[in-house]
Order: sequence, then C-alpha cells, then structure tokens
Amino acid sequence: MKEILLNSENYQPGLSIDCVIFGFHDNQLKVLLIKTSYDNKWSLPGGFVPIKEDIDTAAVTVLNDRTGMQGIFLRQFATFGSIKRKDPNFDSTVLDYFEIPKDAGQWFTQRFVTIGYYALVDFLKAIPQKEDNHEIIEWIDHKEVPELILDHKEILDKALHTLRIELNLMPIGYNLLPEKFTIPELQKLYETILDKKLDRRNFLRKITHIGILKKLDEKKSNVAHKAPNLYTFDKDKYEEVLKNGLNQGW
Amino acid sequence: MKEILLNSENYQPGLSIDCVIFGFHDNQLKVLLIKTSYDNKWSLPGGFVPIKEDIDTAAVTVLNDRTGMQGIFLRQFATFGSIKRKDPNFDSTVLDYFEIPKDAGQWFTQRFVTIGYYALVDFLKAIPQKEDNHEIIEWIDHKEVPELILDHKEILDKALHTLRIELNLMPIGYNLLPEKFTIPELQKLYETILDKKLDRRNFLRKITHIGILKKLDEKKSNVAHKAPNLYTFDKDKYEEVLKNGLNQGW
Repeated sequence: MKEILLNSENYQPGLSIDCVIFGFHDNQLKVLLIKTSYDNKWSLPGGFVPIKEDIDTAAVTVLNDRTGMQGIFLRQFATFGSIKRKDPNFDSTVLDYFEIPKDAGQWFTQRFVTIGYYALVDFLKAIPQKEDNHEIIEWIDHKEVPELILDHKEILDKALHTLRIELNLMPIGYNLLPEKFTIPELQKLYETILDKKLDRRNFLRKITHIGILKKLDEKKSNVAHKAPNLYTFDKDKYEEVLKNGLNQGW
Repeated sequence: MKEILLNSENYQPGLSIDCVIFGFHDNQLKVLLIKTSYDNKWSLPGGFVPIKEDIDTAAVTVLNDRTGMQGIFLRQFATFGSIKRKDPNFDSTVLDYFEIPKDAGQWFTQRFVTIGYYALVDFLKAIPQKEDNHEIIEWIDHKEVPELILDHKEILDKALHTLRIELNLMPIGYNLLPEKFTIPELQKLYETILDKKLDRRNFLRKITHIGILKKLDEKKSNVAHKAPNLYTFDKDKYEEVLKNGLNQGW
C-alpha cells in the first residue's frame, strides 16, 4: 500500500474492504484484530480495492496478506455505507506514519463504503502478519473484543450473526477444526458459535444425518478413560452439501 | 437525476444501487424491469448514491420512485464489483438523451461497484413509475426475463437464490399476498418461489407450527364448491419471527 499512491487512478474511490477473520481455539471463537501505534483503538484488517481488481480478489489479497494462508473460506456478507463512515479523528500524522504524500491526504477524508467479508481459518495454520513493526495483530476472543474504530463493531456483530444463520444452511467445521476431530469437539464448535448448549444426542443425530462425517479407525489419544472416536469430513460430500444447502435448521 | 450534476461532488463515485423488485400475481413471481429507448436491452431499476445519503436510504429512494409505494420490505443481499462492470457500449448519445453535460461523460466510463437490494411488494398496490416517456417499465415473469444489460441477470439470479434460502430462515408472504388469503394461495407462493411442488399436508403442518397465521371467520367467495377458509397474518407474531428467525428449514 505504501508503494502505490492512494488516489482514484490506482484505487476504486471511496470503497474499502474489511475482513472478519474467525478462528477456533481453546473452545473460543477468536477474531483477528489489528492495532496501529497512531490509534488507540483496534480495527478489522482491511484494504482498498485496486482499480484493476475485482472486489472479491481484493478481499482474498487482504486475507492472504494477513494470515499467510491461501485458499481460505471467504464470504461476502454485507456492505456498510452510512454517511458517518468517515474518520472523524483523521489527522495528518497518519500520512507521515504511512509515508503518504500530503497531497494524497484527501483520500482519507471522503466517506468510505466498505464491503464486509468473513473468513473461517484453521487457527493453528494461520500466522498473523504485521504490515510493519509498529503494528500489533492478535487473535482475540469474540467475547472480549475491545473498542473498535468507526463501525467495525457493527461489522463484526453482523458477521457473527451471518455465521450463526449460515449454520442452518450449510455445514461448518472444515475450515475451523483440525483434520481429525471428535464429535464432542465438533459439538463444542457449534455451541461456541451459537453461544448456547446443544443436546448431545440431538446433535449427534442431526450431524450424522447430514452425511458429511467419516468415522476413522482411530481413537483420540491422551484421554484418560474411554477414548472417543476420531472423525474426519468426507470432503466430496461436504462440498456437495455446501453447494446445495442443508435441508433443515438446527 | 437530471437536475443534479453527475459527479463525485454530488454522488459517491463508482458506486450504484440496483433493485430486484419482486411481486406475486397470477401464480407468477414477477420482477420489475426497465427498458430505455437508447438501449435494446432491459435492466434492473437502479440509481446512484448521493454523497450525503446512506446507501440504504438511496435504495429506499429508488424503490419508492419506481413503485410509488412507501414502507416496502427491502434487503441488501450482495455487492457486485467485477472489473468488467463498465458499460462496454457506452456511447455519448446517452448524455444527450439524459441531457447531461458532455464534461460529466467520464462519470459513465468508470467501473461501477453496485449494491444489490431485493424488495417484496404487493403487486396490486405497486404502480410502476416511468422516469420519462421514453422509458418502458414492466412486470415480467421471472421465468421469462429477456436479455439484461451488464451483469444484471447474475444480480437477479442471486436475489432469487437469496430469497429461496431466506424461506428457510424467515416467514414470507406478508409483503407479497393480499391481506386475506387461503392456505392454498400461501402454498402456491412458496411453490412459485422454490419452483417445486410441496406436499399439502406437510406444508400445512409446518406453516401452522410457525404460529404466524390467524384463521378468519370468513370463507373465500367466488368459489363453486367447498370454499376454503381465509387467513391473515398475525402481524406481531410475524414481526417477532422475522426478527428471531425460524428454527427449522423447509
């Protein structure tokens, strides 16, 4: 971003991308957040849209740059365009900070309409990438998110709401769990996203009914007593259900 | 649009709104389309985003202007931003046509990212409004849509896909049916949107289970033999379910 001048010849004017990147770890649904040294608030990772790039491509770029991962599950979920989407505290020290020429300063003073994408990534494979050394980038439990800039809290809430709704429409877990997992681990993922307890037998019945699980001839190790079976997703069936949708809600 | 100059001081640059307006009539799901005399293709009704207006407000304006109705059910469903979203056949006679000064011509040559909204309206109450006398505006069965400009067909398909998915998440009908209706009429609406036959008893069971219907002490008139009961939506319960979502799919 430092090398290409921020103006409307290089970037789509007044348009940005913000990514809500979810990861699952320690029974927490975490979200990847950024803090720059010129601002006391945290923000979602984001970027601008190069004039010669599709919006979806620009979103993939943000995601790859920030997680070091390719081929991530990524979905556009909503576009935010309140007239209040201007930085009220914009000060030109930001320009110095980013080594941006002063005459490009007006770029930052316009209203930005932002397209929200959410991503599901394997927490253990993602390596959060700083843009420079002044920046902090961290996984934070979605229940303990600090104050965010602008309407980023609203964007995050909407992403979470969308994810909860989509649990009724599609399978989830492939991008959030390790390759082998137990049914209780999968249930815990659903419970964490939905923020409620699910009945064990009901969950087992419903998840089995979808037909995307493959039982492995392997048990979870490091478990003292009765070791639970390990499962993996049947990738072909998973993709098929992802495409056609579930026929029932939870 | 003719009175305010099309430039980035008045409108958000490179951004537009397109509305997929659905109405239900004669057992058809119809969509409101527009044809101008300078183009042989049809298009979705749309507009630009005034610099001082939220994107959602701009969408409401398009909808009110085109249907003559207020308080319509309207939802943003996706944003389209391929780099191909430029009019390849743009010719400057359009400027003459809209009485737009030549120096504003470059407005039309940039890539437009467009935010898609879909609306559900009561077909009998909507009065399609032309922008001028050269324009045709018509309800067209969604199964017989002619060739559309740019990616408008893709936008329409995505809106329909979203509507079908949302049938699993929320009640529908309040905005598409007259105040009093029979269960077979409601079923027909669902069948038309989903484009498939539903089992009569299953549908009755499921729709009753949601708890949004109020049976009226009235039968449908003009029916030769056994007249079916009329129903209406319990508005409070309908709104409640709309807010919290259905707990089951179809």
